[in-house]
Amino acid sequence: MLRLTVSPRFAETDALGHINNTVIPVWFEQGRHGIFEAVHPSLNVDDWPLILAKISVEFVAQIYFGEDVEIRTVIDKLGNSSIIVNHEAWQSKKLVATGEAVMVYFDYQTNKAATIPPEVRERLTPIMK
Amino acid sequence: MLRLTVSPRFAETDALGHINNTVIPVWFEQGRHGIFEAVHPSLNVDDWPLILAKISVEFVAQIYFGEDVEIRTVIDKLGNSSIIVNHEAWQSKKLVATGEAVMVYFDYQTNKAATIPPEVRERLTPIMK
Amino acid sequence: MLRLTVSPRFAETDALGHINNTVIPVWFEQGRHGIFEAVHPSLNVDDWPLILAKISVEFVAQIYFGEDVEIRTVIDKLGNSSIIVNHEAWQSKKLVATGEAVMVYFDYQTNKAATIPPEVRERLTPIMK
Amino acid sequence: MLRLTVSPRFAETDALGHINNTVIPVWFEQGRHGIFEAVHPSLNVDDWPLILAKISVEFVAQIYFGEDVEIRTVIDKLGNSSIIVNHEAWQSKKLVATGEAVMVYFDYQTNKAATIPPEVRERLTPIMK
Repeated sequence: MLRLTVSPRFAETDALGHINNTVIPVWFEQGRHGIFEAVHPSLNVDDWPLILAKISVEFVAQIYFGEDVEIRTVIDKLGNSSIIVNHEAWQSKKLVATGEAVMVYFDYQTNKAATIPPEVRERLTPIMK
Repeated sequence: MLRLTVSPRFAETDALGHINNTVIPVWFEQGRHGIFEAVHPSLNVDDWPLILAKISVEFVAQIYFGEDVEIRTVIDKLGNSSIIVNHEAWQSKKLVATGEAVMVYFDYQTNKAATIPPEVRERLTPIMK
Repeated sequence: MLRLTVSPRFAETDALGHINNTVIPVWFEQGRHGIFEAVHPSLNVDDWPLILAKISVEFVAQIYFGEDVEIRTVIDKLGNSSIIVNHEAWQSKKLVATGEAVMVYFDYQTNKAATIPPEVRERLTPIMK
Repeated sequence: MLRLTVSPRFAETDALGHINNTVIPVWFEQGRHGIFEAVHPSLNVDDWPLILAKISVEFVAQIYFGEDVEIRTVIDKLGNSSIIVNHEAWQSKKLVATGEAVMVYFDYQTNKAATIPPEVRERLTPIMK
């Protein structure tokens, strides 16, 4: 499991007084940084091998400014070319949001999904549920 | 159907050269402004009657800087207290993203879902699919 | 003068109930898009010839959700390689923010400022104060 | 001095491959959180006593994804009602951006600047240059 601690930013609140819902996909993307590194250790964007196909977020409880949030990220399923990721956001020992992201190992040259190579699969294994 | 034209911002691109995926939930929330107005014409946040329960986005094609994007928003289903919304993003006559949002008519005082009143329901009807 | 109309986004408000101050540099950058196009009509990032050296913003009055904002952008001074830009944000006929941006015509290969070519200077002239 | 470590987010890069310039004011605002707490320990927005009058940022060097950034924040001058703050952003032992923010101790009821009370002044002293 990947664990990331995020300190909510004042700029991330909205007029209802809590963290705006559009911020959670940003935190969850940051939660996937460890997957980016496992898949593509150079982080070089010229041969970036991932594309995002789908995300979803369920807003479980209000998220407040002034308390850290822990983002927990695990790989739920590893397909031939797809990586399905589950996210949870916890604040003050309470689950406040969950989410899923479907990423595809992708060849931007041919514009097609590609098979996840064995060495990448191996680096992803410790992040599996 | 609500139609919103968005000009992608340079700040919304990312290092892969396209619009970053976390921007689409922001555009889709802006696509729901017309629903906010129909539900709560004053837009006063002190008695705001909506809460967001869930969002999902499917990334269909790359979204580019330099071309306007049209966000199309319709209400798919109107429940007793829930409003299920469908979004589409179109750029250069191509569907580039779709999404769904589940909103709940909500009483922040009692912290509970509430029945959508008839006059709100009436104002929402023209936005239905 | 370049004029851009921005509809404030709910996600751009903060817990104090107004548009968060960090949003204004984003709107002002969008106000400079017409300068990007005049300087570099292709908008191709591979030979992008501008770098931002400095920005400043003065917050004159609260900016509200629910009313459009007009961003007015003019070139204040055109140096050998620098372009100094003035921004104003107007909402409900009131000046709500002003700002300045110092951009430099730049050669990313040699990592040095470069002389603004005559044809670029000509395309910038209509945007001058 | 307040020190904050920020991990640049992929969503914060832009098509030029580096961190977009509009992100730095967001990090600098986060760098001021310790000042918010010193001025207004409850962080309650209903009696928030600060308003931002001005910001400026100088972009000294490119800021990269993949390396942490340290934001250093000090109070440069403490006036009767104003708090002038200096920010620096450091990445890989290199100064990459500097900035200033002018905040005003403010009474939102009377809509006027107010004198910084002695106990607030005392809590701000350790953050002074």
